[in-house]
Parts: sequence; C-alpha cells; structure tokens
Amino acid sequence: MSLQDRTPPTVEEYRAYKERFSNWGRWGADDQLGTMNLITPAKRVAAARLVTDGVAVTCARPIVTDVTADTTFQVMRFMVDSGEGRDTAAPERLLQRRGAAEFIGMVFHGYTVTHVDTPAHFFWEGKIYNGRSCNLITAREGATVEAVELLHDGVVSRGVLLDVARARGVSWLERGQGVLPEDLEAAERAEGVRVEPGDILLVRTGNYARRLAEGPVNPMQAGSPGPHAALAPWLRERGVAMFGSDTHNDVTPTPYPGMGHPFHIVALVGLGLWLIDNMNLEDVARAASERSRWEFLLTVAPLRLKNVTGSPVNPIALF
Amino acid sequence: MSLQDRTPPTVEEYRAYKERFSNWGRWGADDQLGTMNLITPAKRVAAARLVTDGVAVTCARPIVTDVTADTTFQVMRFMVDSGEGRDTAAPERLLQRRGAAEFIGMVFHGYTVTHVDTPAHFFWEGKIYNGRSCNLITAREGATVEAVELLHDGVVSRGVLLDVARARGVSWLERGQGVLPEDLEAAERAEGVRVEPGDILLVRTGNYARRLAEGPVNPMQAGSPGPHAALAPWLRERGVAMFGSDTHNDVTPTPYPGMGHPFHIVALVGLGLWLIDNMNLEDVARAASERSRWEFLLTVAPLRLKNVTGSPVNPIALF
Amino acid sequence: MSLQDRTPPTVEEYRAYKERFSNWGRWGADDQLGTMNLITPAKRVAAARLVTDGVAVTCARPIVTDVTADTTFQVMRFMVDSGEGRDTAAPERLLQRRGAAEFIGMVFHGYTVTHVDTPAHFFWEGKIYNGRSCNLITAREGATVEAVELLHDGVVSRGVLLDVARARGVSWLERGQGVLPEDLEAAERAEGVRVEPGDILLVRTGNYARRLAEGPVNPMQAGSPGPHAALAPWLRERGVAMFGSDTHNDVTPTPYPGMGHPFHIVALVGLGLWLIDNMNLEDVARAASERSRWEFLLTVAPLRLKNVTGSPVNPIALF
Amino acid sequence: MSLQDRTPPTVEEYRAYKERFSNWGRWGADDQLGTMNLITPAKRVAAARLVTDGVAVTCARPIVTDVTADTTFQVMRFMVDSGEGRDTAAPERLLQRRGAAEFIGMVFHGYTVTHVDTPAHFFWEGKIYNGRSCNLITAREGATVEAVELLHDGVVSRGVLLDVARARGVSWLERGQGVLPEDLEAAERAEGVRVEPGDILLVRTGNYARRLAEGPVNPMQAGSPGPHAALAPWLRERGVAMFGSDTHNDVTPTPYPGMGHPFHIVALVGLGLWLIDNMNLEDVARAASERSRWEFLLTVAPLRLKNVTGSPVNPIALF
Repeated sequence: MSLQDRTPPTVEEYRAYKERFSNWGRWGADDQLGTMNLITPAKRVAAARLVTDGVAVTCARPIVTDVTADTTFQVMRFMVDSGEGRDTAAPERLLQRRGAAEFIGMVFHGYTVTHVDTPAHFFWEGKIYNGRSCNLITAREGATVEAVELLHDGVVSRGVLLDVARARGVSWLERGQGVLPEDLEAAERAEGVRVEPGDILLVRTGNYARRLAEGPVNPMQAGSPGPHAALAPWLRERGVAMFGSDTHNDVTPTPYPGMGHPFHIVALVGLGLWLIDNMNLEDVARAASERSRWEFLLTVAPLRLKNVTGSPVNPIALF
Repeated sequence: MSLQDRTPPTVEEYRAYKERFSNWGRWGADDQLGTMNLITPAKRVAAARLVTDGVAVTCARPIVTDVTADTTFQVMRFMVDSGEGRDTAAPERLLQRRGAAEFIGMVFHGYTVTHVDTPAHFFWEGKIYNGRSCNLITAREGATVEAVELLHDGVVSRGVLLDVARARGVSWLERGQGVLPEDLEAAERAEGVRVEPGDILLVRTGNYARRLAEGPVNPMQAGSPGPHAALAPWLRERGVAMFGSDTHNDVTPTPYPGMGHPFHIVALVGLGLWLIDNMNLEDVARAASERSRWEFLLTVAPLRLKNVTGSPVNPIALF
Repeated sequence: MSLQDRTPPTVEEYRAYKERFSNWGRWGADDQLGTMNLITPAKRVAAARLVTDGVAVTCARPIVTDVTADTTFQVMRFMVDSGEGRDTAAPERLLQRRGAAEFIGMVFHGYTVTHVDTPAHFFWEGKIYNGRSCNLITAREGATVEAVELLHDGVVSRGVLLDVARARGVSWLERGQGVLPEDLEAAERAEGVRVEPGDILLVRTGNYARRLAEGPVNPMQAGSPGPHAALAPWLRERGVAMFGSDTHNDVTPTPYPGMGHPFHIVALVGLGLWLIDNMNLEDVARAASERSRWEFLLTVAPLRLKNVTGSPVNPIALF
Repeated sequence: MSLQDRTPPTVEEYRAYKERFSNWGRWGADDQLGTMNLITPAKRVAAARLVTDGVAVTCARPIVTDVTADTTFQVMRFMVDSGEGRDTAAPERLLQRRGAAEFIGMVFHGYTVTHVDTPAHFFWEGKIYNGRSCNLITAREGATVEAVELLHDGVVSRGVLLDVARARGVSWLERGQGVLPEDLEAAERAEGVRVEPGDILLVRTGNYARRLAEGPVNPMQAGSPGPHAALAPWLRERGVAMFGSDTHNDVTPTPYPGMGHPFHIVALVGLGLWLIDNMNLEDVARAASERSRWEFLLTVAPLRLKNVTGSPVNPIALF
C-alpha cells in the first residue's frame, strides 16, 4: 500500500513525514486536540457495549520511590503526618488526633512512570503540533498551549491491544527492534481485530515483562524495543486517537541519529497524536488472552494539571 | 427506621458508632478493601449498560499552583526543560533538541485537590479500619497497609449523583450545614433513583459552585457544608462502596468538638468506606440534569502510588 | 561629585548606566566573579583584626514553612523519619532504630528567605554580567555560568553596616522610599565609618523591623523601601564587593516602570555586584549600636549548589 | 589513661557509655545546646587571632543533582525561570523580563551533602540528648527541640584539622577502619597541635580523596572508614564543641551490630556533641600542609531552618 512504507523510511523520507503525514490544519488552525478529535460519542457508546464480564484491569505500572537503572528523577513520597505512637496516647487525645498524609512529587516523563504525553511535549524544528512555536512552552508558565488540561473529561474509547510479542511468538522483542506497520497487521490477523478511527491503540512488545523478569536497565544505554517512526502513516490512515505501549515509545538506539526521538516527534508534532508511555500491558494481555478478545472499554483519566505536558495515569480496561 | 437516626446522634451515640455500624471483620480479619468488596463484576456490567449518549464528564477540579485561601500546601509545577529560544537555533541543532518536561509535587490531602482517601488516612482511638494499629502508618515507610495501591485496577461501578442542593431548592448549602440521611432520601425521591449496594455515591452540596462564584475560603475558618457523621448507618445499610462530595467531606465546624473529622473517622475507620474529597460536581450535575438521569458509569483511577493514603484523581462519568 | 547623581537619574540616564558604570571587561573577558575580585587576602586579614569581643551574630531571617503575605513559593519541610512512638518499643528494637531526617525544599529567591543573588540572576537586554548571553541560563542545565559555586570558598571580608533608618532618625523607611547615595554618606558620617574597596556593605532600612512589628505584606502590592538604582555609581566608586539589605533590594514601586528591578539589573548585570536579599539586620544593628562600631568580620558561606543563581545563606558577623 | 579506652570498648562497655560519659544535666536540665556551651567569646577572639594569611577555604563538597552510588535521595534543582530565548525579544520586552530562579530540594542527611547533625537527629533507647523523649521529633512538626535554629548565630571557633591519613602515612584509611583516640593523638604529635575545649575538631581519613580518585560507593554496602564510638571519652575529656570528618561519621560495618550508628548515638545523644558529616577536607588539608599549620578560624553557618535536625553547610576555614 502506498502510504505504508514496508521498508523503514530513509532519513530524508522521515524528514518529509512532517509534510506528507501531517495533521496540521486538519481540524482548523486553532485546534489543540489533534487526534482526540477522532473520538466521537458514538464511538464511546460502542466501546461501552463491549463490556460483558465486568472485569477491570490496570494498564499502569506501580510507582515506587526506589532509584533503579531506569530512573531519571527519583519519585518522592514524604509523610506529612504518620500514625506512629498514636495508639498509646491518652483517650481524649486519641480522639483529637488527625491522620496521615503525604507529599508526592515526580517527573513523570522518563522511563518508569506510566504517563500521557501531550503534543506540547516535543518540538520539531521549533514547532509543536499545528505549527505553533515551541516558545509557548515556557520555563515560567509551562505549557501555555496543548497542555493536558485539554483532556479534562478523560479519554474514553475502544481500546485495542495489539500483542506484537505474541504475534511474533516471542516473550519480548529484543532491544533495538522497532515495531513496524507489518507487526501491527500481523497482530490484527492473529487476534481477529481491526484498528479503526477513534481507537486507543495499545501495543505490547513484552518489554515490561522483561523488566519484571530480568530487572530494569537504562534504555538509553541498553536499548529498548519500541514503535518505529515508520508507524506514522499507518496510524494516521487508521485514525488512531491515542497510542500507548509498554516502552518509552521510541525504538532505541534511534534509527535516525541526531534527531532525538523520531516516533515521539512525528506522532506528537506531526500528527497531534497523544501518547501513553511506559505502560504495563501484562495484566491486560492476560485478560485479553483468557477471553480471546483484544478490545475493551478503555478509560484514561489524566490529572487536571495546569500548563503541564502530560500526566501520570492509570488507564483502566473494562472487559 | 431503626438504623437511620433522624436526629443527629449525640456524642455518646456517635462514639458508639464504632461498634454499632462497624464493618470490622465483615470481610475477614485480613481484609483491607472494606466497602470495595461490594463492587461485583455484575455491578460493573450493569453500570456499563447505562451508557447511551457516549458523553464523558470530569468530576475533578483543576489543580493549580496558586496559593488560595483554601491552600494547605502549595502545588508545585517546575519545568525540567522548556521550549523557549528553540525556534531560532541552527537547523541541525533544532532536530537534536528534546522537548519539555516538568516536576509536579503536591500534598493532595487538603481542601483543593480532588483525591481519594484510603481507610488508612484517619485513626480512631489508635486504630485504622479492621482494627489494625495506626502504628502501621509510619513516617519512614508510609502506609504499609490499606494503601491506595489496593485500587490498582481502578474503581468502576455505577455512579449515583444525589444533588442535595437541587433537592433543597438552593444554589448551595450554607457553611455549617450537614448533609443528613433525610437529605439523601429527598434527593432520591426528586431524582427517581435509589442508592444500591456497590454504588459510588456522589453528593452535591453546591459548595464548589459557591467557590467558583464567590472565591475560595478556608473551610477551617469559614466553615463548610459537608456530610454529617449521621450518614454512617444509612451508607452502611445501602451498601455504598465509595462516597464523594464537593466538600472536604466533613461538615465544619464539627458537631462533635474535640473529635477531629467525625465523618471521615466513622467512614474510613469504622466502615472501611473509601472517600473522594473536593470533587467538582458541577459538570456532572449539569449533564445529569439535562438528561434527567442521575446514574452513569463512573471510573475512578487512582495512581499506583506505593504506601500512600490516597491519590489525586480525575473521576470520569460516562453517560 | 560628578559620579554621584544627587538627583535620581532619569530613565535615559538610568539606561545609560550600563555603559557608564559597567564593569564589563574590567577583570578580563572571561571573568565571572565581578566585584568579588575586590576582596584580597590583606582585606580579610584586616577584617579579622576587627574581632575583639568574640560575639557572633546572625544576619539571616528564620526560614519557616508558613504561607505569609510575602510568600512566593512555600518552603517545604517534610520528615523522612520521626521519633514518634519509639520510646516504648522493646529494648533491642530501640537500639536498632535510626533517627529523624527531613526533606527541605525552597525557591529561595523571593521576599522571605535571606539569600545570595549571583550575577546570572537577572538579564539586561538579553545579557548577563560581562556581556554573556542570557541563553546560558537554561531551563535544563540551570546557570551554566556566573553560578553560586564560584563562591565555594565563601565570602569573607569586612562587613560595614550603614544604618540608614538610624541616620534618618526613623524606625524604618516608608514603603516606596529609595535609599540614595546621600543616605549612605549620612550614615557614614553618623557612624564614623567609611566604605572602602572590598567591603561587604549592609544597608539597614528598618524594613525587617517593620515586618516583625506589623506583620508581612506583599512588597509587590504594598511597596517596599530599598536601594535605588542611583546607588550604582557610588557603589562602583567605593569598590563595594557585595551588597545586602533588609529588603528584597529594589525600591518598590519601581522608579522606572516597565524595566523590572532596576537596582538588581544595574548591580548584577552592569557591575557584576553580588547581592544579599531579605537580610535580618536587627541583631547586627543592635550589636553594632551597643558597641558604637559598625564594622566587623563578615562570613557569607553559600551552599555549593551547582548551576544555581544564588543560595540561601546565614551571614555571620563577628565582633 | 583511665578515660581513654586503648582497646575499643566491648558492646557492654559501649552501652555503659551513656551513663559514664554522658553530658546530660551538665549544663542544666533545660539545656539543648550541648557541647556548643564550650565555645566562649574569648575562644572566638583567640581563633580570629590565628588569621594571618587571609586565605579562605571551603570544607564542603559540591552538591550535585546526579544519582551516584552514595545517593540516598536525589537532590533537586528545577528552574522556575530561565534566560533562554530572551536575547532576541523586542527591545521593550527585553527590559521587562525578570531573570532566572530555581527550586532546590534535598534530604541533606545521607552520604553526599556536607551537613550539620543536631542532637535530635538520633535516639538512644527512646531518648535524645539531655534525656528528652524522642516523641518530641514528630512527623508533623519536625524537631520541636534540639533543632538547628539553636545555631542561628553560627558556630565560630578555632578549627583544628587532625589529618589521620597523613599521620598514618596513607592516602586514605581503608573501609572498615575506625578512627581511635590514639589516631587523634598521633596526628596531634605529627602536627604539633593540641585539641582544647571549644575547638571544632575536623578529622581527615582521606575518604573523600578516595571518592574523588575512585568514584563513589555506597558506604552501607562497601563500608567506610569513620570515627569509632571509642572516641567518645576522648572527645569529652578534651571538650570538643563540634566534630566533623570526611566520612558519614560512623565506621562501617559497625563494630556493634544491631545498634545502628554507634558513634552518632554516643556523640549526639550522650554528649550532645554536634556533628558535621560528609565534609570535603582536601582543600583545607592542602592549605594546612602548605603552611604547616593545622589550626584556623572556622565558621559554620547553618541555615535558619525551623524544627529541622540539621542543615546543609559550607564551613569556611580562614587562615
């Protein structure tokens, strides 16, 4: 098919993606929602109809405060108050005592926390999605456009899990292996499902299973499987509204040295396609496999943070 | 009805709630889930069947970094990288540039952020839900039991909005007015709905509408409407799985001086009833009123934080 | 005297300060130390000779976590571990127990914390001290030049306190009153001291005394006394190495609307003069007055933070 | 000598240190200052007389945000505003622009940041210095006693550097080697100096030189040289006011398994002796060696943090 480059694009072809497969202007010059425009009320109703078992499954990884090989910034959890020693106080004092609370802090972008990326998270030649200047993401004010608050009503649609590792018959893709359009189509055939406009596409490489089995590595040093920029035309053709995987969402090392994160850039900047990085797709893959059903109602509910380029999330699949 | 105290309980009666309306032991000595046990797969399937319009609505407030009258700890948003000045760099450098990211930090407990409370958040005479010692919530390790990670698969059930302000015919309840069982029943009658086992009950007092209209106040100084501890028997009888409101979830000033937050205590410690504080119920009330339908599929997806007594959330109602 | 504008400069004159009273290039094109070059070993020896009483006095304000009218970002202090409940444990366990520790966090720039400003803290027409581009202060890397680590060996010199409020015979200067060269000279005469090259000059307006007496105000709203940009020629002529006051170091409202913080800009950018903002000069003024001696050994010891535009400090005067 | 155990004490002897070498009650039942009581004005005057060269030298390590093998909590530095892109703005806008600022945050206790420990930092059988209950260090309020604010006027006295590595003729002590009283006396003889009441004693093991040469290790895993609890009687006899070293201040692995940090405990709790952990003594050792003079004026200026068990510091030696 003409739009689907069966051979990964050359660096020149990749650089031409910005024009060839751009969504700039597609939903008007003022649009900030990008591919979120593809989710319609009818799509949500249809997705809700998929619910037959009433089983809810997380698609997020636990968030821990440990420093591991894939930590970029340590997550913080400090208690503001605790319960220690409050079991032995005098009775009247016992009643007065409050409770426990904590401060939590994190740089959710990175390689460990499951999180949404907004289109403002990456730049391409000084631009963000729909041609805005990256100057609009300031050190002082944050993301003054294309920020996560645009998703205040959540992202609710059909979730489709394409288990590429399963389709390839491996426990996990090797580090450095990119997911290509033919991988997605092979998984579609294996699962009997077809990705359609407005879907939230989840791609399983087995990368998180490997982390659980073998321990964490730094993806910048050890490499990582992940989506290849070559997916962009396919994702645009199919009308994917949101894309997530169990990787940091760029095959590493990069096929296009010196160009940062090519999949992120073409997805976020070119397509206005919102991403979910570092998912845990083990639970949902098990639930799907048990039912031989790789589609479900998926709810992604970012925090209503202001001027922020993403949010930690716990996407919930409902079978 | 015997279990429903039509007159708010006296302080002695309130203190007896711990034994009279306790759920300790109800789901076994090892239970940490409390009222979450009431949500069944069948309940979730029935809730999904309610989806007819495909309209998703947030039940959370925006999270801002401003210090306002109701701030306890300032929310932090600091950029780890920005886009400023990156539109004018040399071409090759432009391609190399990464993107924007930020640190976010907060004490979500308080009066501004919409968040879940786990049973471990409050103590009663040295105990947390199911009779555990509050010593298990430590300054160093955090909530080693009854923590929010128990909800890793989210909370998905029927949401029922009881709009008490609407039922009373007021824009909002006055500060210091407690929501009593008869308020809930009046709202049920007005809306033609009945709270049933496994429901997530959302109670609207109009308190957030007032904040939007008149600006924030410190609830500890100015007072606040909120659920009265007298609701405990009713909530237990009806089998409510989770309770949220547009207040910090305790009528203030307290009807039981010297006893902290009586509703929190009886709900969290006695019933093992999980709470959602500081909701925004304006959007969902509008959506419900437009449809004359106060029930919907509700998804609450706490972050998978470890050893934490709650989580900021963005609950999504799907009509 | 020609260099000392007895009338505050017009806006045009102020803008010409950058060329007229600049220290750019004075200590070489590579210099980052600015006026710190004026402190010599001989100066330090002479300063140490001033010590006759052995009395040490703080010049810093307490750092609290409260939100007050002059807070810009709330200071954080969260315990990592506490001592609660550890007095009653079993003996062997008692011995094993660690201790208490905390996380502290702050944006020390602002109006409450006593802190050093490095020359990189402010920009003038895109430049920092010695003509470098402000692009060198990046969102990701911080202050890659002119950062506080340059002061790793501390700032030790003669401190001279010019008590302008005392010289004017008032408890404190009114908000909006700027300190001018004639104020400094009047204080010199009243105290029998003369500011000389390499001195750390501390100027007392009484502003912190007023805060203690009347409570905090937001200086951006209520105004503040402070050094006027007209001081720049005088400070340069005298060879002041570091300048501190009991204000945020700019008379407010500004005499030059639309130009930010004129004293900061001319001092930091033009002169390369390091500042200490928000000092507590009450203790040192009392100690000086009791001895009728306004000079002392002063030690300012910034934290060795990397790529940071200042540091919280506790300057110690030794009489 | 009777007080100086030439053989490291047995575990029973160590446990008896609390009574035998305690300073509890020595300066009154209300005392919180502990050994700080030993620094007199006359002592400070004498220390200032030592200044002959006017050379100031840091005794602190750089504070970096990197995660290294000895990191316990990552130090945070996030820009609140940067200078990027501000060199090219329109002229009027250029004048309006503010400057750069940052948030800094840290858990200074640990193995990397040079910091003061207050007596409240450790507990011994439920007690802190002078017999207070460790319950006074709470998760909510922090160190309500024996906190660093007691040192608001700084610690200024004679600093004496005992270079134990030099006296032993090695580059650094091996990991696991404890510094004993005879090491201190050998260094005294080698340097021709004698530790006297009110001194701030700095002990160099070469441990930081090794970190610079070989890279960081986790002292809990790899071990560390450090002061042995056997120093306690000697330090008390000599009247040391403050003790610092280039280690985390406890030989590791501990000679008394199951008893936490024995030197910290006997020093902080028993003696009320304030500590400085993780110093950089390389610069000051070089300066001392060049002058064959191991005494100097030392200024330690903790931040005026409230209810905190220590402070990051940059101690400045003045020769």
